Amino acid sequence: MSTTPFPPAGDKAALEHGSALTPRFDAHGLIAAVATHVETGEILMLAWMNAEALKLTIDTGEAHYYSRSRQALWKKGETSGQVQKVRELRVDCDQDAVWIKVDPQGDGGACHTGARSCFYRVWEDGRLVERP
Amino acid sequence: MSTTPFPPAGDKAALEHGSALTPRFDAHGLIAAVATHVETGEILMLAWMNAEALKLTIDTGEAHYYSRSRQALWKKGETSGQVQKVRELRVDCDQDAVWIKVDPQGDGGACHTGARSCFYRVWEDGRLVERP
Repeated sequence: MSTTPFPPAGDKAALEHGSALTPRFDAHGLIAAVATHVETGEILMLAWMNAEALKLTIDTGEAHYYSRSRQALWKKGETSGQVQKVRELRVDCDQDAVWIKVDPQGDGGACHTGARSCFYRVWEDGRLVERP
Repeated sequence: MSTTPFPPAGDKAALEHGSALTPRFDAHGLIAAVATHVETGEILMLAWMNAEALKLTIDTGEAHYYSRSRQALWKKGETSGQVQKVRELRVDCDQDAVWIKVDPQGDGGACHTGARSCFYRVWEDGRLVERP
């Protein structure tokens, strides 16, 4: 995709209070995306979207991301079955991050390790401990 | 700070299941950090931490971030009073994102616009709508 499917960002007022989605992708063309479980509210994962992934997420209602390591667009759940049905999409004040509330399909998880959420470790007393 | 205060990342097994916090900062020395409200669970903001900000967050129990636009470390709430007391800190599977659950001080908000959360707009029917 040679052109971004989103309009350019307006001034500060438009960016913060306008009704136009004008995501501010970074120098690599990416925006941070956080997915929470629509029912439990827990954070499932944090990943990246390029313009194409964000547009596909909006158009299909299923989360698409961009892998920085593989440098490729991917649809979440394409191989794992953990497709994320998007129930709500929010953007932050300066439009450089999105928050999607999702209904995870398949086994209901999101992490390639088998954990439900990628954030399965808590910092406690100077070490990481695995916690639900 | 010329050296990172965290040990280097180990192999995949150590990264995903080890007890050592070995954050994988990006090429700019930053890691994404999501703050949720410890009581309501809502996402308040998504920002960035460099090694120093992450260490200060852990050591002081109050959230510190790194501003990409100002290229400077900042303590959340230093001017606004919206200090974020950190109640829990989690890291994700590949240690390139952190999730902090915070108790916001001051007026209890997190956004410079006056909104409680920075994610005050929802994508609905092709436009952004402000929603609690």
